[in-house]
Amino acid sequence: MATALALELFRKGCIIQEIWSRENKHSRILAQKVKAKSVQKIEKMNSETDLFIIAVKDDFVSEVAAKIPGKNPFIVHTSGTVDLKELKKISSHAGVIYPLQTFTKKSKVDFTRLPILIEGSSSLIEKRILEVTKKLSEIVQRIDSTQRKKIHLAAVFVSNFPNYFYSIAETILKKEKVPFELLIPLIEQVTSNLKTSPPSSNQTGPAVRKDKKTMKRHLELLKNEKEWQKIYRSVSKGIMQHTFENKK
Amino acid sequence: MATALALELFRKGCIIQEIWSRENKHSRILAQKVKAKSVQKIEKMNSETDLFIIAVKDDFVSEVAAKIPGKNPFIVHTSGTVDLKELKKISSHAGVIYPLQTFTKKSKVDFTRLPILIEGSSSLIEKRILEVTKKLSEIVQRIDSTQRKKIHLAAVFVSNFPNYFYSIAETILKKEKVPFELLIPLIEQVTSNLKTSPPSSNQTGPAVRKDKKTMKRHLELLKNEKEWQKIYRSVSKGIMQHTFENKK
Repeated sequence: MATALALELFRKGCIIQEIWSRENKHSRILAQKVKAKSVQKIEKMNSETDLFIIAVKDDFVSEVAAKIPGKNPFIVHTSGTVDLKELKKISSHAGVIYPLQTFTKKSKVDFTRLPILIEGSSSLIEKRILEVTKKLSEIVQRIDSTQRKKIHLAAVFVSNFPNYFYSIAETILKKEKVPFELLIPLIEQVTSNLKTSPPSSNQTGPAVRKDKKTMKRHLELLKNEKEWQKIYRSVSKGIMQHTFENKK
Repeated sequence: MATALALELFRKGCIIQEIWSRENKHSRILAQKVKAKSVQKIEKMNSETDLFIIAVKDDFVSEVAAKIPGKNPFIVHTSGTVDLKELKKISSHAGVIYPLQTFTKKSKVDFTRLPILIEGSSSLIEKRILEVTKKLSEIVQRIDSTQRKKIHLAAVFVSNFPNYFYSIAETILKKEKVPFELLIPLIEQVTSNLKTSPPSSNQTGPAVRKDKKTMKRHLELLKNEKEWQKIYRSVSKGIMQHTFENKK
Protein backbone atom coordinates (compact mmCIF):
# COMPACT_ATOMS: atom_id res chain seq x y z
CA MET A 1 0.00 0.00 0.00
CA ALA A 2 2.71 2.50 1.03
CA THR A 3 4.63 1.82 -2.16
CA ALA A 4 1.62 2.03 -4.47
CA LEU A 5 0.40 5.23 -2.84
CA ALA A 6 3.79 6.98 -2.83
CA LEU A 7 4.42 6.07 -6.48
CA GLU A 8 0.99 7.30 -7.52
CA LEU A 9 1.25 10.59 -5.61
CA PHE A 10 4.67 11.14 -7.16
CA ARG A 11 3.30 10.37 -10.63
CA LYS A 12 0.55 12.93 -10.06
CA GLY A 13 3.08 15.64 -9.30
CA CYS A 14 3.15 15.65 -5.49
CA ILE A 15 6.50 16.34 -3.89
CA ILE A 16 7.40 13.57 -1.53
CA GLN A 17 9.97 14.84 0.92
CA GLU A 18 10.81 11.92 3.11
CA ILE A 19 10.18 8.21 3.41
CA TRP A 20 10.45 6.22 6.60
CA SER A 21 9.98 2.49 6.92
CA ARG A 22 10.55 -0.05 9.68
CA GLU A 23 12.84 -1.73 7.16
CA ASN A 24 15.53 0.75 6.26
CA LYS A 25 16.17 -1.03 2.99
CA HIS A 26 12.55 -0.59 1.92
CA SER A 27 12.57 3.12 2.65
CA ARG A 28 15.78 3.58 0.66
CA ILE A 29 14.37 1.76 -2.38
CA LEU A 30 11.08 3.65 -2.32
CA ALA A 31 12.71 7.01 -1.58
CA GLN A 32 14.88 6.61 -4.64
CA LYS A 33 11.84 5.91 -6.83
CA VAL A 34 9.99 9.03 -5.71
CA LYS A 35 13.02 11.32 -5.40
CA ALA A 36 12.64 11.62 -1.64
CA LYS A 37 15.03 11.40 1.29
CA SER A 38 15.07 8.16 3.20
CA VAL A 39 15.01 8.75 6.95
CA GLN A 40 15.91 6.31 9.68
CA LYS A 41 14.05 7.86 12.60
CA ILE A 42 10.51 9.21 12.53
CA GLU A 43 11.44 11.71 15.23
CA LYS A 44 14.01 13.26 12.88
CA MET A 45 11.57 13.92 10.04
CA ASN A 46 11.00 17.45 8.85
CA SER A 47 8.36 18.90 11.15
CA GLU A 48 7.40 21.49 8.52
CA THR A 49 6.05 18.82 6.19
CA ASP A 50 2.54 19.61 4.86
CA LEU A 51 1.17 16.14 5.31
CA PHE A 52 2.36 12.93 6.97
CA ILE A 53 0.81 9.77 5.53
CA ILE A 54 1.02 6.78 7.84
CA ALA A 55 0.76 3.59 5.79
CA VAL A 56 1.82 0.91 8.25
CA LYS A 57 0.11 -2.14 9.73
CA ASP A 58 -3.04 -1.20 11.64
CA ASP A 59 -1.54 -2.10 15.03
CA PHE A 60 1.34 0.34 14.61
CA VAL A 61 -0.57 3.40 13.43
CA SER A 62 -0.81 5.03 16.87
CA GLU A 63 2.77 4.22 17.77
CA VAL A 64 4.12 5.73 14.55
CA ALA A 65 1.79 8.75 14.78
CA ALA A 66 3.01 9.55 18.29
CA LYS A 67 6.60 9.86 17.07
CA ILE A 68 5.89 12.37 14.31
CA PRO A 69 7.61 15.66 15.17
CA GLY A 70 6.09 19.13 15.27
CA LYS A 71 3.19 20.72 17.04
CA ASN A 72 -0.13 19.47 15.75
CA PRO A 73 1.24 17.89 12.56
CA PHE A 74 -1.18 17.13 9.76
CA ILE A 75 -1.34 13.33 9.86
CA VAL A 76 -3.50 10.79 8.08
CA HIS A 77 -3.57 7.03 8.20
CA THR A 78 -4.61 4.67 5.40
CA SER A 79 -6.26 1.92 7.41
CA GLY A 80 -9.76 0.54 7.04
CA THR A 81 -10.05 -0.44 10.66
CA VAL A 82 -8.30 2.22 12.76
CA ASP A 83 -10.65 4.84 14.21
CA LEU A 84 -9.86 8.47 13.51
CA LYS A 85 -10.00 8.96 17.30
CA GLU A 86 -6.59 7.27 17.53
CA LEU A 87 -4.98 10.07 15.52
CA LYS A 88 -7.03 12.80 17.15
CA LYS A 89 -5.38 11.92 20.45
CA ILE A 90 -2.12 13.03 18.88
CA SER A 91 -3.07 15.93 16.63
CA SER A 92 -6.14 18.01 15.89
CA HIS A 93 -5.15 17.95 12.21
CA ALA A 94 -5.92 14.34 11.62
CA GLY A 95 -7.58 12.33 8.91
CA VAL A 96 -7.93 9.14 6.94
CA ILE A 97 -7.16 8.29 3.32
CA TYR A 98 -8.39 4.76 2.80
CA PRO A 99 -8.05 3.37 -0.73
CA LEU A 100 -10.63 0.62 -1.03
CA GLN A 101 -8.39 -1.78 -2.84
CA THR A 102 -6.21 -4.86 -2.50
CA PHE A 103 -2.54 -4.38 -3.19
CA THR A 104 -0.49 -7.42 -4.12
CA LYS A 105 3.08 -7.02 -5.26
CA LYS A 106 2.36 -8.00 -8.85
CA SER A 107 -0.99 -6.36 -9.43
CA LYS A 108 -1.43 -3.22 -11.48
CA VAL A 109 -3.91 -0.95 -9.78
CA ASP A 110 -5.86 1.62 -11.75
CA PHE A 111 -6.06 4.48 -9.26
CA THR A 112 -8.44 6.56 -11.33
CA ARG A 113 -11.31 4.16 -10.71
CA LEU A 114 -10.28 3.23 -7.17
CA PRO A 115 -12.65 4.52 -4.51
CA ILE A 116 -10.83 6.51 -1.86
CA LEU A 117 -12.68 6.89 1.41
CA ILE A 118 -11.70 9.95 3.39
CA GLU A 119 -12.38 11.41 6.81
CA GLY A 120 -11.01 14.48 8.56
CA SER A 121 -10.98 15.88 12.08
CA SER A 122 -12.58 19.10 10.76
CA SER A 123 -14.16 20.30 7.55
CA LEU A 124 -10.99 22.26 6.75
CA ILE A 125 -8.88 19.14 7.15
CA GLU A 126 -11.34 17.19 5.04
CA LYS A 127 -11.09 19.80 2.32
CA ARG A 128 -7.30 19.51 2.29
CA ILE A 129 -7.50 15.71 2.15
CA LEU A 130 -9.94 16.02 -0.72
CA GLU A 131 -7.47 18.19 -2.65
CA VAL A 132 -4.79 15.50 -2.39
CA THR A 133 -7.01 12.51 -3.07
CA LYS A 134 -8.75 14.12 -6.05
CA LYS A 135 -5.38 13.92 -7.78
CA LEU A 136 -5.42 10.17 -7.34
CA SER A 137 -8.96 9.11 -8.09
CA GLU A 138 -12.26 10.22 -9.55
CA ILE A 139 -14.12 8.43 -6.77
CA VAL A 140 -13.49 10.12 -3.43
CA GLN A 141 -16.11 9.70 -0.77
CA ARG A 142 -16.53 11.00 2.77
CA ILE A 143 -17.04 8.06 5.08
CA ASP A 144 -16.95 8.16 8.89
CA SER A 145 -14.99 5.71 11.03
CA THR A 146 -17.99 3.50 11.85
CA GLN A 147 -18.96 3.16 8.19
CA ARG A 148 -15.34 2.61 7.18
CA LYS A 149 -14.97 -0.34 9.56
CA LYS A 150 -18.09 -1.93 8.11
CA ILE A 151 -16.87 -1.32 4.58
CA HIS A 152 -13.55 -2.91 5.52
CA LEU A 153 -15.41 -5.97 6.76
CA ALA A 154 -17.48 -6.06 3.56
CA ALA A 155 -14.24 -5.77 1.56
CA VAL A 156 -12.89 -8.90 3.25
CA PHE A 157 -16.04 -10.75 2.17
CA VAL A 158 -15.76 -9.59 -1.45
CA SER A 159 -12.01 -9.84 -1.95
CA ASN A 160 -10.00 -11.95 0.51
CA PHE A 161 -12.63 -14.66 0.91
CA PRO A 162 -13.43 -15.11 -2.79
CA ASN A 163 -9.72 -15.17 -3.57
CA TYR A 164 -9.29 -17.97 -1.06
CA PHE A 165 -12.08 -19.87 -2.78
CA TYR A 166 -10.31 -19.35 -6.09
CA SER A 167 -7.24 -20.99 -4.59
CA ILE A 168 -9.31 -23.90 -3.27
CA ALA A 169 -10.56 -24.34 -6.85
CA GLU A 170 -6.98 -24.04 -8.11
CA THR A 171 -5.98 -26.92 -5.82
CA ILE A 172 -8.97 -29.07 -6.81
CA LEU A 173 -8.26 -28.58 -10.52
CA LYS A 174 -4.52 -29.12 -10.14
CA LYS A 175 -5.22 -32.64 -8.90
CA GLU A 176 -7.25 -33.26 -12.06
CA LYS A 177 -4.53 -31.70 -14.24
CA VAL A 178 -7.05 -29.11 -15.42
CA PRO A 179 -5.75 -25.53 -15.76
CA PHE A 180 -7.30 -22.96 -13.43
CA GLU A 181 -7.73 -20.59 -16.41
CA LEU A 182 -10.74 -22.64 -17.47
CA LEU A 183 -12.69 -21.04 -14.62
CA ILE A 184 -11.86 -17.42 -15.46
CA PRO A 185 -14.79 -16.78 -17.86
CA LEU A 186 -17.16 -18.04 -15.17
CA ILE A 187 -15.57 -15.84 -12.53
CA GLU A 188 -15.78 -12.85 -14.87
CA GLN A 189 -19.43 -13.55 -15.60
CA VAL A 190 -20.28 -13.47 -11.90
CA THR A 191 -18.53 -10.11 -11.58
CA SER A 192 -20.06 -8.75 -14.74
CA ASN A 193 -23.56 -9.68 -13.51
CA LEU A 194 -23.03 -7.23 -10.62
CA LYS A 195 -23.23 -4.37 -13.09
CA THR A 196 -26.76 -5.18 -14.18
CA SER A 197 -28.26 -6.46 -10.95
CA PRO A 198 -27.35 -6.70 -7.28
CA PRO A 199 -25.72 -9.95 -6.06
CA SER A 200 -28.80 -10.91 -4.05
CA SER A 201 -30.71 -11.35 -7.28
CA ASN A 202 -27.93 -13.29 -9.03
CA GLN A 203 -27.59 -16.24 -6.67
CA THR A 204 -27.37 -19.60 -8.46
CA GLY A 205 -26.08 -23.03 -7.53
CA PRO A 206 -27.11 -26.08 -5.52
CA ALA A 207 -27.55 -24.30 -2.17
CA VAL A 208 -30.05 -21.67 -3.31
CA ARG A 209 -31.97 -24.43 -5.14
CA LYS A 210 -31.81 -26.49 -1.95
CA ASP A 211 -30.47 -29.31 -4.13
CA LYS A 212 -29.36 -31.58 -1.30
CA LYS A 213 -28.24 -34.43 -3.55
CA THR A 214 -25.67 -32.28 -5.32
CA MET A 215 -24.46 -30.79 -2.05
CA LYS A 216 -24.08 -34.28 -0.62
CA ARG A 217 -22.05 -35.34 -3.66
CA HIS A 218 -19.84 -32.28 -3.30
CA LEU A 219 -19.23 -33.01 0.37
CA GLU A 220 -18.33 -36.56 -0.61
CA LEU A 221 -15.78 -35.24 -3.12
CA LEU A 222 -14.29 -33.16 -0.29
CA LYS A 223 -14.04 -36.07 2.13
CA ASN A 224 -10.26 -35.77 2.43
CA GLU A 225 -10.41 -32.03 3.03
CA LYS A 226 -12.22 -31.63 6.34
CA GLU A 227 -11.59 -27.89 6.52
CA TRP A 228 -13.08 -27.29 3.09
CA GLN A 229 -16.02 -29.52 3.94
CA LYS A 230 -16.69 -27.33 6.95
CA ILE A 231 -16.50 -24.21 4.81
CA TYR A 232 -18.73 -25.76 2.15
CA ARG A 233 -21.28 -26.61 4.83
CA SER A 234 -21.28 -23.23 6.56
CA VAL A 235 -21.50 -21.24 3.32
CA SER A 236 -24.22 -23.48 1.84
CA LYS A 237 -26.19 -23.23 5.07
CA GLY A 238 -25.88 -19.46 4.89
CA ILE A 239 -27.14 -19.44 1.30
CA MET A 240 -30.06 -21.73 2.16
CA GLN A 241 -31.11 -19.51 5.06
CA HIS A 242 -30.56 -16.21 3.31
CA THR A 243 -33.59 -14.56 1.78
CA PHE A 244 -32.69 -13.61 -1.74
CA GLU A 245 -34.65 -11.07 -3.69
CA ASN A 246 -34.91 -13.19 -6.75
CA LYS A 247 -34.57 -16.94 -6.41
CA LYS A 248 -33.56 -18.87 -9.49
CA MET B 1 -29.47 -23.00 -19.39
CA ALA B 2 -31.90 -24.67 -21.84
CA THR B 3 -33.06 -21.29 -23.09
CA ALA B 4 -29.57 -19.82 -23.45
CA LEU B 5 -28.29 -22.91 -25.25
CA ALA B 6 -31.24 -23.22 -27.64
CA LEU B 7 -31.09 -19.53 -28.55
CA GLU B 8 -27.37 -19.69 -29.16
CA LEU B 9 -27.56 -22.85 -31.30
CA PHE B 10 -30.34 -21.24 -33.31
CA ARG B 11 -28.30 -18.07 -33.73
CA LYS B 12 -25.39 -20.16 -35.00
CA GLY B 13 -27.54 -21.72 -37.70
CA CYS B 14 -28.57 -25.02 -36.15
CA ILE B 15 -32.05 -26.24 -36.94
CA ILE B 16 -33.95 -26.89 -33.77
CA GLN B 17 -36.82 -29.23 -34.50
CA GLU B 18 -38.63 -29.67 -31.25
CA ILE B 19 -38.70 -28.31 -27.73
CA TRP B 20 -40.07 -30.13 -24.74
CA SER B 21 -40.31 -28.73 -21.24
CA ARG B 22 -41.96 -29.87 -18.02
CA GLU B 23 -43.81 -26.56 -18.20
CA ASN B 24 -45.74 -26.53 -21.43
CA LYS B 25 -45.83 -22.75 -21.44
CA HIS B 26 -42.01 -22.57 -21.32
CA SER B 27 -41.62 -24.92 -24.25
CA ARG B 28 -44.10 -22.91 -26.34
CA ILE B 29 -42.30 -19.63 -25.66
CA LEU B 30 -38.88 -21.06 -26.42
CA ALA B 31 -40.08 -23.01 -29.45
CA GLN B 32 -41.43 -19.84 -30.96
CA LYS B 33 -38.13 -18.05 -30.48
CA VAL B 34 -36.12 -20.75 -32.23
CA LYS B 35 -38.72 -21.64 -34.86
CA ALA B 36 -39.23 -25.12 -33.46
CA LYS B 37 -42.27 -27.21 -32.65
CA SER B 38 -43.32 -27.37 -29.05
CA VAL B 39 -44.09 -30.93 -27.98
CA GLN B 40 -46.02 -32.05 -24.96
CA LYS B 41 -44.72 -35.58 -24.62
CA ILE B 42 -41.12 -36.67 -24.89
CA GLU B 43 -42.25 -40.06 -26.17
CA LYS B 44 -43.86 -38.37 -29.17
CA MET B 45 -40.72 -36.55 -30.29
CA ASN B 46 -39.33 -37.23 -33.74
CA SER B 47 -37.13 -40.29 -33.34
CA GLU B 48 -35.16 -39.33 -36.46
CA THR B 49 -33.70 -36.25 -34.76
CA ASP B 50 -29.90 -35.99 -35.11
CA LEU B 51 -29.27 -34.97 -31.51
CA PHE B 52 -31.34 -34.74 -28.36
CA ILE B 53 -30.03 -32.26 -25.80
CA ILE B 54 -31.30 -32.83 -22.27
CA ALA B 55 -31.05 -29.61 -20.28
CA VAL B 56 -33.11 -30.35 -17.19
CA LYS B 57 -32.36 -30.47 -13.47
CA ASP B 58 -29.68 -33.04 -12.66
CA ASP B 59 -32.08 -35.34 -10.85
CA PHE B 60 -34.33 -35.72 -13.89
CA VAL B 61 -31.70 -36.39 -16.56
CA SER B 62 -32.08 -40.18 -16.48
CA GLU B 63 -35.86 -40.08 -16.32
CA VAL B 64 -36.08 -37.77 -19.34
CA ALA B 65 -33.43 -39.71 -21.28
CA ALA B 66 -35.33 -42.95 -20.82
CA LYS B 67 -38.40 -41.52 -22.52
CA ILE B 68 -36.63 -40.39 -25.69
CA PRO B 69 -37.94 -42.41 -28.63
CA GLY B 70 -35.95 -44.32 -31.23
CA LYS B 71 -33.36 -47.04 -31.13
CA ASN B 72 -30.07 -45.82 -29.74
CA PRO B 73 -30.85 -42.09 -30.05
CA PHE B 74 -27.96 -39.65 -29.92
CA ILE B 75 -28.48 -37.99 -26.52
CA VAL B 76 -26.36 -35.59 -24.50
CA HIS B 77 -26.96 -33.94 -21.17
CA THR B 78 -25.64 -30.57 -20.01
CA SER B 79 -25.02 -31.27 -16.35
CA GLY B 80 -21.82 -30.81 -14.39
CA THR B 81 -22.60 -33.58 -11.94
CA VAL B 82 -24.35 -36.39 -13.82
CA ASP B 83 -22.05 -39.22 -14.90
CA LEU B 84 -22.03 -40.19 -18.57
CA LYS B 85 -22.75 -43.73 -17.37
CA GLU B 86 -26.34 -42.68 -16.69
CA LEU B 87 -26.93 -41.98 -20.37
CA LYS B 88 -24.93 -44.98 -21.56
CA LYS B 89 -27.46 -47.19 -19.82
CA ILE B 90 -30.00 -45.84 -22.29
CA SER B 91 -28.06 -45.37 -25.51
CA SER B 92 -24.63 -46.17 -26.85
CA HIS B 93 -24.67 -42.77 -28.59
CA ALA B 94 -24.36 -40.68 -25.49
CA GLY B 95 -22.44 -37.65 -24.44
CA VAL B 96 -22.12 -34.48 -22.42
CA ILE B 97 -22.11 -30.82 -23.40
CA TYR B 98 -21.38 -28.92 -20.21
CA PRO B 99 -21.05 -25.14 -20.57
CA LEU B 100 -18.95 -23.97 -17.64
CA GLN B 101 -21.03 -20.93 -16.87
CA THR B 102 -23.67 -19.46 -14.61
CA PHE B 103 -26.96 -18.52 -16.23
CA THR B 104 -29.13 -15.97 -14.50
CA LYS B 105 -32.18 -14.62 -16.25
CA LYS B 106 -30.74 -11.15 -16.70
CA SER B 107 -27.13 -11.90 -17.54
CA LYS B 108 -25.73 -11.67 -21.02
CA VAL B 109 -23.42 -14.59 -21.64
CA ASP B 110 -20.67 -14.37 -24.22
CA PHE B 111 -20.65 -17.90 -25.60
CA THR B 112 -17.52 -17.43 -27.68
CA ARG B 113 -15.34 -17.29 -24.59
CA LEU B 114 -17.35 -19.77 -22.57
CA PRO B 115 -15.53 -23.07 -21.97
CA ILE B 116 -17.61 -26.03 -23.07
CA LEU B 117 -16.59 -29.33 -21.56
CA ILE B 118 -17.52 -32.33 -23.63
CA GLU B 119 -17.48 -36.08 -23.30
CA GLY B 120 -18.73 -38.83 -25.58
CA SER B 121 -19.39 -42.54 -25.34
CA SER B 122 -17.02 -43.15 -28.28
CA SER B 123 -14.51 -41.15 -30.26
CA LEU B 124 -16.99 -40.86 -33.13
CA ILE B 125 -19.65 -39.46 -30.79
CA GLU B 126 -17.09 -37.07 -29.34
CA LYS B 127 -16.23 -35.87 -32.82
CA ARG B 128 -19.88 -35.15 -33.55
CA ILE B 129 -20.28 -33.30 -30.27
CA LEU B 130 -17.19 -31.29 -31.09
CA GLU B 131 -18.70 -30.26 -34.44
CA VAL B 132 -21.76 -28.83 -32.67
CA THR B 133 -19.98 -27.18 -29.77
CA LYS B 134 -17.32 -25.59 -31.98
CA LYS B 135 -20.12 -23.48 -33.40
CA LEU B 136 -20.81 -22.13 -29.94
CA SER B 137 -17.42 -21.52 -28.41
CA GLU B 138 -13.73 -21.25 -29.15
CA ILE B 139 -12.94 -23.12 -25.95
CA VAL B 140 -14.10 -26.72 -26.16
CA GLN B 141 -12.32 -29.24 -24.03
CA ARG B 142 -12.60 -33.00 -23.57
CA ILE B 143 -13.17 -33.73 -19.89
CA ASP B 144 -14.19 -37.08 -18.41
CA SER B 145 -17.00 -37.51 -15.87
CA THR B 146 -14.71 -37.66 -12.83
CA GLN B 147 -12.92 -34.47 -13.85
CA ARG B 148 -16.21 -32.78 -14.70
CA LYS B 149 -17.63 -33.42 -11.24
CA LYS B 150 -14.54 -31.89 -9.66
CA ILE B 151 -14.73 -28.90 -11.98
CA HIS B 152 -18.39 -28.47 -11.05
CA LEU B 153 -17.42 -28.44 -7.39
CA ALA B 154 -14.66 -25.91 -8.12
CA ALA B 155 -17.19 -23.81 -10.05
CA VAL B 156 -19.41 -23.61 -6.95
CA PHE B 157 -16.42 -22.31 -5.00
CA VAL B 158 -15.58 -19.65 -7.59
CA SER B 159 -19.08 -18.52 -8.54
CA ASN B 160 -21.97 -19.35 -6.18
CA PHE B 161 -19.97 -18.87 -2.99
CA PRO B 162 -18.34 -15.54 -3.94
CA ASN B 163 -21.70 -14.26 -5.16
CA TYR B 164 -23.18 -15.08 -1.76
CA PHE B 165 -20.37 -13.14 -0.12
CA TYR B 166 -21.15 -10.21 -2.42
CA SER B 167 -24.71 -10.28 -1.14
CA ILE B 168 -23.51 -10.39 2.47
CA ALA B 169 -21.48 -7.27 1.67
CA GLU B 170 -24.51 -5.74 -0.02
CA THR B 171 -26.50 -6.22 3.21
CA ILE B 172 -23.72 -4.85 5.42
CA LEU B 173 -23.38 -1.74 3.25
CA LYS B 174 -27.13 -1.21 2.94
CA LYS B 175 -27.31 -0.77 6.71
CA GLU B 176 -24.65 1.95 6.44
CA LYS B 177 -26.43 3.55 3.49
CA VAL B 178 -23.35 2.98 1.36
CA PRO B 179 -23.97 1.80 -2.23
CA PHE B 180 -22.69 -1.67 -3.12
CA GLU B 181 -21.16 -0.24 -6.31
CA LEU B 182 -18.32 1.15 -4.20
CA LEU B 183 -16.95 -2.39 -3.92
CA ILE B 184 -16.98 -3.20 -7.62
CA PRO B 185 -13.49 -1.87 -8.47
CA LEU B 186 -12.09 -3.99 -5.63
CA ILE B 187 -13.94 -7.08 -6.85
CA GLU B 188 -12.69 -6.46 -10.38
CA GLN B 189 -9.12 -6.07 -9.15
CA VAL B 190 -9.23 -9.46 -7.46
CA THR B 191 -10.47 -11.02 -10.70
CA SER B 192 -7.99 -9.14 -12.81
CA ASN B 193 -5.11 -10.32 -10.59
CA LEU B 194 -5.95 -13.90 -11.66
CA LYS B 195 -4.69 -13.11 -15.14
CA THR B 196 -1.17 -12.33 -13.99
CA SER B 197 -0.76 -14.78 -11.14
CA PRO B 198 -2.60 -17.72 -9.60
CA PRO B 199 -4.98 -17.02 -6.68
CA SER B 200 -2.72 -18.80 -4.21
CA SER B 201 -0.13 -16.07 -4.70
CA ASN B 202 -2.63 -13.21 -4.45
CA GLN B 203 -4.01 -13.86 -0.99
CA THR B 204 -4.27 -10.71 1.13
CA GLY B 205 -6.27 -9.70 4.20
CA PRO B 206 -6.28 -10.20 7.95
CA ALA B 207 -6.44 -14.03 7.93
CA VAL B 208 -3.37 -14.65 5.78
CA ARG B 209 -1.47 -12.07 7.89
CA LYS B 210 -2.77 -13.88 10.99
CA ASP B 211 -3.92 -10.45 12.20
CA LYS B 212 -6.03 -11.69 15.10
CA LYS B 213 -6.96 -8.22 16.36
CA THR B 214 -8.65 -7.27 13.09
CA MET B 215 -10.40 -10.63 12.85
CA LYS B 216 -11.68 -10.20 16.40
CA ARG B 217 -12.99 -6.73 15.54
CA HIS B 218 -14.73 -8.12 12.46
CA LEU B 219 -16.38 -10.87 14.49
CA GLU B 220 -17.51 -8.23 16.93
CA LEU B 221 -19.12 -6.25 14.08
CA LEU B 222 -20.95 -9.45 13.08
CA LYS B 223 -22.23 -10.15 16.58
CA ASN B 224 -25.87 -9.96 15.49
CA GLU B 225 -25.31 -12.26 12.51
CA LYS B 226 -24.35 -15.61 14.01
CA GLU B 227 -24.45 -17.42 10.67
CA TRP B 228 -22.04 -14.94 9.07
CA GLN B 229 -19.79 -15.09 12.11
CA LYS B 230 -19.58 -18.85 11.64
CA ILE B 231 -18.74 -18.41 7.97
CA TYR B 232 -16.17 -15.72 8.78
CA ARG B 233 -14.55 -18.07 11.28
CA SER B 234 -14.47 -21.13 9.06
CA VAL B 235 -13.14 -19.27 6.03
CA SER B 236 -10.52 -17.37 8.03
CA LYS B 237 -9.40 -20.60 9.68
CA GLY B 238 -9.06 -22.16 6.24
CA ILE B 239 -6.95 -19.24 5.04
CA MET B 240 -4.74 -19.37 8.14
CA GLN B 241 -4.11 -23.10 7.70
CA HIS B 242 -3.68 -23.03 3.94
CA THR B 243 -0.13 -22.94 2.64
CA PHE B 244 0.04 -20.19 0.10
CA GLU B 245 2.83 -20.00 -2.44
CA ASN B 246 3.51 -16.39 -1.83
CA LYS B 247 2.54 -14.88 1.48
CA LYS B 248 2.06 -11.16 1.63
